[in-house]
Amino acid sequence: MNPEEFRAAGHAVIDFLADYHASLSQRPVMAQTRPGEVRAQLPGAAPTEPESFARVLSDVEQVVLPGLSLWQHPRFFGYFPANADLGSVLGDMLSTGLGVLGLSWQSSPALTEVEEVVTDWMRQLVGLPDTFHGVIQDTASTSTLVALLCARERTTAYSASRAGLQGEARPLVVYTSVYSHSSVQKAAVLAGFGNDNVRAIPADEAFALRPDLLEAAILSDLEAGRVPCAVVVSTGTTTTTALDPVAAVAVLTERHGLWLHVDAAMAGTAMMLPECRWMWNGVERADSVVLNPHKWLGSVFDNSLYYVRDPQHLVRVMSTNPSYLQSAADGEVTNYRDWGIPLGRRFRALKLWSMLRTSGIEAIQARLRRDLANAQWLAEQVRAAPDWQVLAPVPLQTVCVRYAPAGLTAEALDHLTQAWCARINDSGEAYLTPATLEGRWMVRVSIGALTTERTHVEQLWEIMQRHAAEVAQSMAAGV
Amino acid sequence: MNPEEFRAAGHAVIDFLADYHASLSQRPVMAQTRPGEVRAQLPGAAPTEPESFARVLSDVEQVVLPGLSLWQHPRFFGYFPANADLGSVLGDMLSTGLGVLGLSWQSSPALTEVEEVVTDWMRQLVGLPDTFHGVIQDTASTSTLVALLCARERTTAYSASRAGLQGEARPLVVYTSVYSHSSVQKAAVLAGFGNDNVRAIPADEAFALRPDLLEAAILSDLEAGRVPCAVVVSTGTTTTTALDPVAAVAVLTERHGLWLHVDAAMAGTAMMLPECRWMWNGVERADSVVLNPHKWLGSVFDNSLYYVRDPQHLVRVMSTNPSYLQSAADGEVTNYRDWGIPLGRRFRALKLWSMLRTSGIEAIQARLRRDLANAQWLAEQVRAAPDWQVLAPVPLQTVCVRYAPAGLTAEALDHLTQAWCARINDSGEAYLTPATLEGRWMVRVSIGALTTERTHVEQLWEIMQRHAAEVAQSMAAGV
Repeated sequence: MNPEEFRAAGHAVIDFLADYHASLSQRPVMAQTRPGEVRAQLPGAAPTEPESFARVLSDVEQVVLPGLSLWQHPRFFGYFPANADLGSVLGDMLSTGLGVLGLSWQSSPALTEVEEVVTDWMRQLVGLPDTFHGVIQDTASTSTLVALLCARERTTAYSASRAGLQGEARPLVVYTSVYSHSSVQKAAVLAGFGNDNVRAIPADEAFALRPDLLEAAILSDLEAGRVPCAVVVSTGTTTTTALDPVAAVAVLTERHGLWLHVDAAMAGTAMMLPECRWMWNGVERADSVVLNPHKWLGSVFDNSLYYVRDPQHLVRVMSTNPSYLQSAADGEVTNYRDWGIPLGRRFRALKLWSMLRTSGIEAIQARLRRDLANAQWLAEQVRAAPDWQVLAPVPLQTVCVRYAPAGLTAEALDHLTQAWCARINDSGEAYLTPATLEGRWMVRVSIGALTTERTHVEQLWEIMQRHAAEVAQSMAAGV
Repeated sequence: MNPEEFRAAGHAVIDFLADYHASLSQRPVMAQTRPGEVRAQLPGAAPTEPESFARVLSDVEQVVLPGLSLWQHPRFFGYFPANADLGSVLGDMLSTGLGVLGLSWQSSPALTEVEEVVTDWMRQLVGLPDTFHGVIQDTASTSTLVALLCARERTTAYSASRAGLQGEARPLVVYTSVYSHSSVQKAAVLAGFGNDNVRAIPADEAFALRPDLLEAAILSDLEAGRVPCAVVVSTGTTTTTALDPVAAVAVLTERHGLWLHVDAAMAGTAMMLPECRWMWNGVERADSVVLNPHKWLGSVFDNSLYYVRDPQHLVRVMSTNPSYLQSAADGEVTNYRDWGIPLGRRFRALKLWSMLRTSGIEAIQARLRRDLANAQWLAEQVRAAPDWQVLAPVPLQTVCVRYAPAGLTAEALDHLTQAWCARINDSGEAYLTPATLEGRWMVRVSIGALTTERTHVEQLWEIMQRHAAEVAQSMAAGV
C-alpha cells in the first residue's frame, strides 16, 4: 500500500471509528456471539491476490464488530474501566504510523526520551517521590513478574549469574494476600518459586491483608530455614478494591529484608486525587509499584507503568549487551531494553503523553471524582433497597453487591446471583462481572468508563433490580 | 475528546502520516540527536489545562520526528527489516480505535477468533504441519521465554505446582549456539536456570551449531547428574543468518527428551518461499517455533508468532482461572490468556490479517525474492572488489562485510570498520549495524525494507566504498 492509498483508506478508518464511538451507546455491551461464529465467517487460507482495504473494513464492520464486547460503552461495568480516551487513540495511531521501535536509545532516541518524560509526569501526578524511576510495560502481569524477578535476584545476590534458582540451598518464599490478583500467583510460579513457596495471607473483615499474619508467616518460614523474598500488596484488590496496609507491611519488609511490590494497577489512578493518597500510605518505602494508565485513567491499552526505586536491580537482572546492540551513546542514555523482558519496544509513551496533554489534569481529576461519587450513590441505593446487600467497603469505584431474598439456601442464592448477572449480560443492556467472595458468588459493579454519567448508573440500578426480581420470581415459581 | 473532535484530528493524523511516508527517503536515516536533546524540549510536568491536539501533532513533527531513526527508510540496512506495511498500520489503527481487549474469549470473541484464523493462515504459509497451534506474543524475547518455561515445566513434570525450580534435586540445563540471539541467554536466566546451566555450543565454519558438540555436551551433563532440558536453535542467526541444523538436533532432543525450540524470528518469513523451506528442514519435529511478522514480512510492530505442537504444555504452565475471569463459554473456546504471560491482550491479529489481505501472498513472495536477489547482488560486488570481504555465507538477505586493506593490524582494522560504519550512520545517508564475528568487528547489511529496491542497494554500495576509502585514507595519513 503506497502513501496515497493509505491516505484515502486512512480517512475511511477515521470516519468509521468516529461513527463507531458516536454510536457506541446504541449497541449491545456484551458480544452476542456463539463460540466459533466469527471464525466460521472467515476464509481458511490467506488470499493469493490482493484484496481492497474497503473489503477489510467491511469485514471489520460486518464480522468483527458484532463479535466485540464494548469496553468503552457507558454501561460497561465489567472487569475494570478500560478506557480509550480518543486523544490517546490518536497518540497510539501516531506511534503505529511512525513505525519506529526501540531496541536501544540510538534506535529511536525520542521513543526513549518521551517515555522518560511522561513516566516522570505520572510519578509526580500520583505523588511518588523522585527516588522512583518509571518504565512502560504491557500489563501489570508482566510488571509483577519483573518485580518478582528483581526480588529473586536481589535476595540471592544475583544467582542468575551463577546456577540460578537451582543453585540456592534454601527455598525463597513470596507472600501476598489471599485476595491479590491471579497474576501474582502466576508471576511467582513463572519466576520459578513454585506454588508451595507462595503464601496466601488471610485478610481482615475489609478484605485487606493482615500484617500480623504476614509477620507470623515470615517468622515461621525463617524458623523452618526458608528465605522470605518478597511481598506483593494491593492498593485496590480486584475483587473488592480492598486496601492492603502498605506502611504496616513496609515495616516488616524492611525489618526482614524483603522486596515490597505494590500492585495499584487499577486504583493507582485514584492517587491523582490528593484526598485518596492515604490509601497507599507508605508507598514511598516500596521497592516497586505498578499502575496501569490503560485502565481507569484513560490511555488506550497497553500501557502499564512500572516504577522501581533502584533501577540498578532491574538493569542488572534484565541487561543484555551483544555487539549488535551497542552504540556510542550507551554511557549517557537509558536503554529501556534493560528494564523489561522484550528487546523490541513500541513507542507507547505517545498515547499517554497525548492523552494527558489533550485532557489536562484538572479535567481528569474531576472525572475521577465523578466516578467515586457515582459508586457512593449506587452503594447507597443498594443498601437502602430491601433484600439487597453491599458486601464490602467502597473506597473507590467498585461496588460488590448481592440480591438476597429471604429463605434461599446458599446454593440457591449462588444460582440466583449468577442467573441475574448472566441475564443482564446476555441482554446487552449492561455488562457486569460476577465473582466469588468468601466462597459465594456476588456481582462486581466497576464504574469508570469515560462516558459513564450518573444517568447510566441510574439505568444500571433499574436494570439490576428488574432482572434480579424476574429471575427470583421464576425461581420461586419453579420455572 | 469527543468523536467529532477525534474525526477532525484523526484526518490530520492520517495526512501527517501519509506525507511522512511519502517524504521518508528525503530524511536522514539515523536520528542526528544528542542524548537529552528531545527531553530538554519538553515540559517537566503535565499540563493542568487541556492543550489542543494540534499542539501535540506539532510537537510530534518538530520535536519527536527529528529524534527518530527511520526503520522504514529505503536505505535502512540496520538490525533487521522492521517493516510497517501501511495496510497493517491501518489494521493496527482499527485495533487501537476499537479499544477492545482480550482477557478471556468472552471479553471480545472476535479478538480471539481472528487470531486463531490468522495464525493458522501463517502456519500454512510457512509450511508448518497442522499439529502446530499459534498465538501472537509481543516479541521473540517473550516467545523464547515462554518456550523455556514450557520446557522447564515439562522436564520437571510440573514442578511449578510444587516447590518450583527450588525443589529439584538436579539442575536443569539449556543448550544453544554460541551465535544465538542474546534473548535466549536472557530467557534462560529469567526462567531461573542460571548462567552456569546455559551451554553455548560452538559453531562450524558456516556459523551453524555443531550437533556433534551438542551431543557431547548433553552426554557430559547426563554423566555429571544434571538434567538436559531444552535446546534453542536458530533458523537465521542474528549476526550472519546462519542456519542451525534443525533435523540433526531433533534427533538428539528426541533421543534425550529435550524441548526443541526454533528461533526463526527474522528468517521464518522466508519459509513462505518453497525454495527456502530446506533451511529449517526438521522443524515439524520441534516443540515450539517463533517467527516475527513484524520483521521482514511487513506487519507493523509488535507481532511475534509463537507456535507450539502441544498447547497443553503451554496452558498448564500459564493458566489462571479466578472466578472473575470465568465464563459459560470456557469449555468450548480458546482463552489466549493461558498461552502467554500477560492477562490483557491487544487485538494484534487485525494488523497481520489486514496486511496479508491487502498485499496478497504472491506479491509478498515476489518482494522476498527481490530482497534475496539484492543480497546476492551485493555479495557479488563485495567479493569482486579489492580489499573487500564477505565474511559468512549469504543464504538470506543479510551480508556480513569488512573492508580490509592490506597492512593493518587487527586492532587497526577494527578501528577502521567501526569508523566507516559510524560515518555512514552519522551522515544520514544509510543505516548499518556493526557487530563482532569471531571477536572482530564487521558490518551487517540487512536488506529488506519494503521500499528498498536494487537502486538503493547500489547507492549503499557506493556509499560504503566512498566512506570506507575516505576513512582508510585519513587513517593512513595519520589524521
